[in-house]
Amino acid sequence: MTMLNHLINGARVNSQGRTQDIYNPSTGEVSGQVSLASKATVEEAIAAAHKAYPEWRNTPPAKRARVMFRFKQLLEQNADEIAHLIGQEHGKISHDAAGELQRGIENVEYACGVPELLKGEYSKNTGPGIDSWSEFQPLGVVAGITPFNFPAMVPLWMYPMAIACGNTFVLKPSERDPTSALYIAELALEAGLPAGVLNVVNGDKEAVDTLLDDPRVQAVSFVGSTPIAEYIYSRASANGKRCQALGGAKNHAIVMPDADMDYVVSSLTGAAFGSSGERCMALSVAVAVGDKAADTLIEKMKSRMESLKVGAFSDANNDFGPVITQAHREKVLGYINSAEQQGASVVVDGRNIMVPGYENGFFVGGTLIDRVTPEMTCYQEEIFGPVLLVVRAGSMEQAMQLIDDHEYGNGTCIYTRDGEAARYFSDNIQVGMVGINVPLPVPVSYHSFGGWKRSLFGDLSAYGPDAVRFYTKRKTITQRWPSAGIREGAQFAFPA
Amino acid sequence: MTMLNHLINGARVNSQGRTQDIYNPSTGEVSGQVSLASKATVEEAIAAAHKAYPEWRNTPPAKRARVMFRFKQLLEQNADEIAHLIGQEHGKISHDAAGELQRGIENVEYACGVPELLKGEYSKNTGPGIDSWSEFQPLGVVAGITPFNFPAMVPLWMYPMAIACGNTFVLKPSERDPTSALYIAELALEAGLPAGVLNVVNGDKEAVDTLLDDPRVQAVSFVGSTPIAEYIYSRASANGKRCQALGGAKNHAIVMPDADMDYVVSSLTGAAFGSSGERCMALSVAVAVGDKAADTLIEKMKSRMESLKVGAFSDANNDFGPVITQAHREKVLGYINSAEQQGASVVVDGRNIMVPGYENGFFVGGTLIDRVTPEMTCYQEEIFGPVLLVVRAGSMEQAMQLIDDHEYGNGTCIYTRDGEAARYFSDNIQVGMVGINVPLPVPVSYHSFGGWKRSLFGDLSAYGPDAVRFYTKRKTITQRWPSAGIREGAQFAFPA
Amino acid sequence: MTMLNHLINGARVNSQGRTQDIYNPSTGEVSGQVSLASKATVEEAIAAAHKAYPEWRNTPPAKRARVMFRFKQLLEQNADEIAHLIGQEHGKISHDAAGELQRGIENVEYACGVPELLKGEYSKNTGPGIDSWSEFQPLGVVAGITPFNFPAMVPLWMYPMAIACGNTFVLKPSERDPTSALYIAELALEAGLPAGVLNVVNGDKEAVDTLLDDPRVQAVSFVGSTPIAEYIYSRASANGKRCQALGGAKNHAIVMPDADMDYVVSSLTGAAFGSSGERCMALSVAVAVGDKAADTLIEKMKSRMESLKVGAFSDANNDFGPVITQAHREKVLGYINSAEQQGASVVVDGRNIMVPGYENGFFVGGTLIDRVTPEMTCYQEEIFGPVLLVVRAGSMEQAMQLIDDHEYGNGTCIYTRDGEAARYFSDNIQVGMVGINVPLPVPVSYHSFGGWKRSLFGDLSAYGPDAVRFYTKRKTITQRWPSAGIREGAQFAFPA
Amino acid sequence: MTMLNHLINGARVNSQGRTQDIYNPSTGEVSGQVSLASKATVEEAIAAAHKAYPEWRNTPPAKRARVMFRFKQLLEQNADEIAHLIGQEHGKISHDAAGELQRGIENVEYACGVPELLKGEYSKNTGPGIDSWSEFQPLGVVAGITPFNFPAMVPLWMYPMAIACGNTFVLKPSERDPTSALYIAELALEAGLPAGVLNVVNGDKEAVDTLLDDPRVQAVSFVGSTPIAEYIYSRASANGKRCQALGGAKNHAIVMPDADMDYVVSSLTGAAFGSSGERCMALSVAVAVGDKAADTLIEKMKSRMESLKVGAFSDANNDFGPVITQAHREKVLGYINSAEQQGASVVVDGRNIMVPGYENGFFVGGTLIDRVTPEMTCYQEEIFGPVLLVVRAGSMEQAMQLIDDHEYGNGTCIYTRDGEAARYFSDNIQVGMVGINVPLPVPVSYHSFGGWKRSLFGDLSAYGPDAVRFYTKRKTITQRWPSAGIREGAQFAFPA
Repeated sequence: MTMLNHLINGARVNSQGRTQDIYNPSTGEVSGQVSLASKATVEEAIAAAHKAYPEWRNTPPAKRARVMFRFKQLLEQNADEIAHLIGQEHGKISHDAAGELQRGIENVEYACGVPELLKGEYSKNTGPGIDSWSEFQPLGVVAGITPFNFPAMVPLWMYPMAIACGNTFVLKPSERDPTSALYIAELALEAGLPAGVLNVVNGDKEAVDTLLDDPRVQAVSFVGSTPIAEYIYSRASANGKRCQALGGAKNHAIVMPDADMDYVVSSLTGAAFGSSGERCMALSVAVAVGDKAADTLIEKMKSRMESLKVGAFSDANNDFGPVITQAHREKVLGYINSAEQQGASVVVDGRNIMVPGYENGFFVGGTLIDRVTPEMTCYQEEIFGPVLLVVRAGSMEQAMQLIDDHEYGNGTCIYTRDGEAARYFSDNIQVGMVGINVPLPVPVSYHSFGGWKRSLFGDLSAYGPDAVRFYTKRKTITQRWPSAGIREGAQFAFPA
Repeated sequence: MTMLNHLINGARVNSQGRTQDIYNPSTGEVSGQVSLASKATVEEAIAAAHKAYPEWRNTPPAKRARVMFRFKQLLEQNADEIAHLIGQEHGKISHDAAGELQRGIENVEYACGVPELLKGEYSKNTGPGIDSWSEFQPLGVVAGITPFNFPAMVPLWMYPMAIACGNTFVLKPSERDPTSALYIAELALEAGLPAGVLNVVNGDKEAVDTLLDDPRVQAVSFVGSTPIAEYIYSRASANGKRCQALGGAKNHAIVMPDADMDYVVSSLTGAAFGSSGERCMALSVAVAVGDKAADTLIEKMKSRMESLKVGAFSDANNDFGPVITQAHREKVLGYINSAEQQGASVVVDGRNIMVPGYENGFFVGGTLIDRVTPEMTCYQEEIFGPVLLVVRAGSMEQAMQLIDDHEYGNGTCIYTRDGEAARYFSDNIQVGMVGINVPLPVPVSYHSFGGWKRSLFGDLSAYGPDAVRFYTKRKTITQRWPSAGIREGAQFAFPA
Repeated sequence: MTMLNHLINGARVNSQGRTQDIYNPSTGEVSGQVSLASKATVEEAIAAAHKAYPEWRNTPPAKRARVMFRFKQLLEQNADEIAHLIGQEHGKISHDAAGELQRGIENVEYACGVPELLKGEYSKNTGPGIDSWSEFQPLGVVAGITPFNFPAMVPLWMYPMAIACGNTFVLKPSERDPTSALYIAELALEAGLPAGVLNVVNGDKEAVDTLLDDPRVQAVSFVGSTPIAEYIYSRASANGKRCQALGGAKNHAIVMPDADMDYVVSSLTGAAFGSSGERCMALSVAVAVGDKAADTLIEKMKSRMESLKVGAFSDANNDFGPVITQAHREKVLGYINSAEQQGASVVVDGRNIMVPGYENGFFVGGTLIDRVTPEMTCYQEEIFGPVLLVVRAGSMEQAMQLIDDHEYGNGTCIYTRDGEAARYFSDNIQVGMVGINVPLPVPVSYHSFGGWKRSLFGDLSAYGPDAVRFYTKRKTITQRWPSAGIREGAQFAFPA
Repeated sequence: MTMLNHLINGARVNSQGRTQDIYNPSTGEVSGQVSLASKATVEEAIAAAHKAYPEWRNTPPAKRARVMFRFKQLLEQNADEIAHLIGQEHGKISHDAAGELQRGIENVEYACGVPELLKGEYSKNTGPGIDSWSEFQPLGVVAGITPFNFPAMVPLWMYPMAIACGNTFVLKPSERDPTSALYIAELALEAGLPAGVLNVVNGDKEAVDTLLDDPRVQAVSFVGSTPIAEYIYSRASANGKRCQALGGAKNHAIVMPDADMDYVVSSLTGAAFGSSGERCMALSVAVAVGDKAADTLIEKMKSRMESLKVGAFSDANNDFGPVITQAHREKVLGYINSAEQQGASVVVDGRNIMVPGYENGFFVGGTLIDRVTPEMTCYQEEIFGPVLLVVRAGSMEQAMQLIDDHEYGNGTCIYTRDGEAARYFSDNIQVGMVGINVPLPVPVSYHSFGGWKRSLFGDLSAYGPDAVRFYTKRKTITQRWPSAGIREGAQFAFPA
């Protein structure tokens, strides 16, 4: 059985100590083991990054970018293998894994433009004979702590830009599906990163806390659940580090009566159930405005869901696969049970799904629950499973109030053809990423990803332009050359 | 005796409860009293700001900017009065107070450009038929907590831009010299700010903690000492607020052997002793490279200091005035004593200065201390008084190491004529604001102010472009209009 | 009778030679005379600007901006007088003149932000130890040639930004209504412009050609008709000058069947008849999609036009005033006649309007013409009068084809509630300024004004961000300091 | 013998008609023939580009960029072959050809960032409920006309960005060395450009005039000599096209007395003689300040030039190769003769060089001429050969005046260690590209290339950020959604 270890200073490092099983969620079987780094191992990685920093910082940005160009090529050449690794440990279907990787590659593409993105502002004559300019200098060693649900993409949100900006990096991927992250990191080295510029440590809380406390680590990027995000943010901040910590979500779509309901159903299906709903941008609540819209939505959705295919990651005909663990499967089922008990109507029930040949896989079928109300547990918490809740609202006003009252503010969407409704919604809703007829309004790689309210702790969003600001610090230089006639003497006088 | 109270919801508010004396440091006499706001009073201010927010947020940026244009006019018209108010409570000489105000006005000028500064990024065809753009929306109620040493300028670093961005504001100025801040805030209202958009509460820790804990306050800007900055940053961050907290400094100038020593002495004099050294950008340490440079510097500096004039704020012929309190005066004298005891050489001694007619004023004379070493207390801590330390270094390398080893990283300067030295210094030194032959490299209002290391907690600098980012949050909209032939039917077909 | 002369090198300059009458179009009487500058007089102005340039160029941008701040104040303080001067010579009603001035002031506001706008791009380490940055340096002497229809606003599109960027300026306003431009220029001097930085010459083709041919003039901005624009652009370009020349327009609004017709009529009325239609952004063609929309539009428009008030500029109750000259009045009437003769239907006829007490004024009443077709003279040419044409189209496709087939491409608008229609229109239409339910889509001062096709000759648009690029030239500096150990020798070695 | 033809609509096109010989300048032999396109052939290419435009314009920028990513890969994979093709027809040594290609590839890299570069500006609430944004839309068909001296690089300055911005392109490379441009264009198609997006026509004035006159061509980029640039600019401008035309140069370096003379000689050697001086950024005049500097420079330069190796392109040990044609060789020799006749001193004489085995090659040896004065022909005109002129100046002031008096203003350099001299020079010199100790201050690909005075006709520089502006036109949209309550009726009321 393979033992997954660490990538430190350009080489795979075996470490003794604690380990944890890795599962194939499609079969329910253990597929490998991952070493859990001790504090000492993490410090070794930090030390490697710290040592590699001065030279990497002084490498011209255009040269750093060229490593990213090669990295993109290698990712594309190895796309099938990476998608397979993702599917095996995470359970998502190959086309979904390929899509995840493609989004990650787009972040590498953006990092290729770092010479442009690092430009400072130059001002002539801020005073008589005085010039000022700003430089965006790298921070030093920075760390990334990433979740299981996008094992390839989320690390690529972070380190390509961090490294292109001149930092060195320690990544701690999710210990549940770490193989693809490690595989990809080795491609980055193959692309030309010097040893120590990118390091990967597998681990759990001990590794995390080491990264949060070590004074050599200048900044931490995190994506995960809100309670952990809050913990990370507080501890990193208290240690004087720069931190951005992205947490949970409960993304609502408002379905207006004038929406094209076939389009709504078609696009909601992917947004709610894709990747088994294990996405922080999953659309998990549909708010229908008016009972007529609600009834139509339910009817058409129910019909559409009959053809949903759930099964193993390896079959490209499947729409989605298992959830990540047996424990998580039970948690999702618990939310469905509670909805039923609290008075909602389970219209399509995915609790008892059976996938022939994969009887021990961690599957939950697509589930549609109508007449959900804000008091219910299933509404208040993030389910992270293939479950779509329908709430009925009497007006657009009520629908928006629901969204604004929820603690999360990651993504949201409105379905309408009406320009006024779209503008009112996008202007006023207290959510960071807004779709107009786009149920998964994930910003493209050249914009930035960030929720509001308790979905993100920190000033700056992930990837895109904000990442450049997050991974650099501003230095402002003010320069004056005292006038003495040019040094070499009076005969070389200036024009009057 | 005047009792200074609060400005809440457009009106002066009297509150019962605790008060504190305000001094005229030039005479040592009590000149008034300031009310210390209770939690309830601060909450009243927050509530006023909260109520004023929705309408102000929806006011077009160009209209908000126009209030700033009028505010600038009023500040210029009332400049003499404001300079007097500053001098009376802070002690700085009128020309210095006028300079402070001018820097503040420049921040108002920058806020006048807010329609340009708020522009988001628009991308056509992020996918087929899909457009995306970002908006920088205001945060809501934000708070500013400001120090005694720039009672007029530092508040103007904060609220003009915060308000121009669409936020409403609660300012808590220093309780030691609050009059000018209150006076200026009333001019802002006169310029056209609706009631509640800008509020001022005077107070101490109770007021501060209320601002840090109230969930309606979305962000906190602070300028003060490092221990308080760290406290503010931790508490605000733990409460989920955005925070930038600027702390202390120990700014070094490297004097290279090729520098024009007359220029060095002339510019250092103002940078070290201006405003009695009570500036976070004061140049308090000169590092001479080589003994020859050091000896020349000491000799010329000593000579120059003989003509320094110290006295009451009201006499424009004075170079600088008293320090802020008797307690602070004693603290400064203590640093000089310790330097002497620890082996440094007090070349010019300002401890026993007498200002005729102002025998009770809190004066410290200009002090020059040679042969200071890094172990001395006077070197390790921020003195915040008219004391210039000279350290002797054997090389530029040693001089830079001294700076990088200090816990603060606010400002620094090199004196040289050599392009290579200037570039090497500005590139590598671990300080946020760097001067080349500029001893006070305070960025102009259209750049941003921020130190490194323990001089600033937070991702974004004060004023300038960074202030726009600090006082707004990014929202990204992704828009797609499902193609159905234009709504009104097939006869209004599109071009093929 | 007043004789309007020139403003050269800070003083009013009388010149002998040719003159021309200025009319009050409301009364039809001559109100003054304007001197027409000879080549020598224009060269005197150019020489003054050329002499003032070096010092003005070296004045810090923030100081140049401060003149603009004061200029804005003076414009606001003198707004009533300026509006009166505009109305007297141009004929537009006081509220319209005030509106024009306000748009002009907004350009001054934008110029106040020039320190931000002039920032160049700074790149560290474009190669090892090599830095590069760009500066946007002023051009030198630049000229503006402006039309009668916005005698105050169009000059303010040009010289505030040109001057704020460090250039000096020669303005040649329209000789038909030059008084307000001269009055305003004197306010700019009062605001603090040094003598020679802004000069005004009145004149005709002799003056224009002098500006186009003099080698000291680096750039020319022009607004007027397309034939003249083309002449200006060719001649200035052939002389190696930078040039932007804005010409004519024929702005169409598409009225979709789903539009709110009351809103359409209300907003079209101002857009078509305001300022007697003498605006390059006037909405002069309404394209109704479907006969039903057309019939409703005609009916409601006819009804609305009954209450239109036409009369002298001095009565604020009037909606619009006379056209600029008797000759122009006859030209406009000729277009109406031709429409009638070529088969269109004159629904509301403004040809025989009588304004009691102003029988000799150059009035044309609001005119509505239905069933206009693309072959008609009135459709093909710019009328520049209070005449609204209605064309009927069978589909949105046909309506858009009409617009794209016209030689002009200045402004256009679509009235709809449908997001898809709005997006398709704005994406594809070959017009530079597009309104969605906005009939006069004049960009605000912090965006830029520019038509497409034969409405603008040149690469860069007027005012806003493009003006900064037009009035400056890029300089790129690449810097390397050869490493020799810092000049003063080996003992001052760098850190390894 | 190979016949080089055209690349139109994705395929090689044979055309009858006129042809011209292509030489191998190292041997002096004819190496092939190039077809000279007739007007009809060029129109065929324009038609292909015109047809391909609508679909390419609507392809998302990120997809267009991905073609550029693949194009970069293919260029790198074929670098040796391309360098060989360049050398064979141009004569430059392989390392120099590889360097040229690398600069070209860097422009492709920059074009990969086009999604970022195309971002428009989005403004919320430009008025109440009104939003405005700008889009930078492509122009349509654009043309590039490129010179012999950088047969691979200059086309890559143009079409990668033009195409990435959504335009389609017709390239007319130099008919003297067209093979590499055609080879590279085929790689661009292989990378994924649809047929018709990039077309190449070989030809002479007939082809050029067709491009300048055809109304479907929206813009022309040109690089060549100043007389042709002026012709192109005038004719394209008169035809209403956007145009940028880069012309000749006479680049001076000022050698200050404090410069490190070994560094000066070492860097000047490459800058003056590399590529036989056939570069518009070649450093062809050294202005020594003071006779001492001049004497040292001459002495060291003479010594350095003894080891210059001149020979065939195929030998990587050579420093530079032949000039482009026999006629050009004679022209260069004529300049040297004239210098001698007019009183200058030919210190190193390259007129009679013999390259064994390549007796018929078009070689000119490295030539150094001292005591050149401004009246001499060799000073006034661009030589475009391996000839370095030395002018002696008495002061920095005189040296700068020389540069400013010359008609060209492409590049320039100062050698000094003094910060004040560097800043004064870069601020004031009337040249577009300035080096501080950098003799070839060619801006990197993420800055823009543009001379001043008669070295560039047009507003916008080549490549870099300016190219995005040149290859797009600004469209400004202003949007308002009339408030009618959301379409579906009163029950869906907005929050109050």
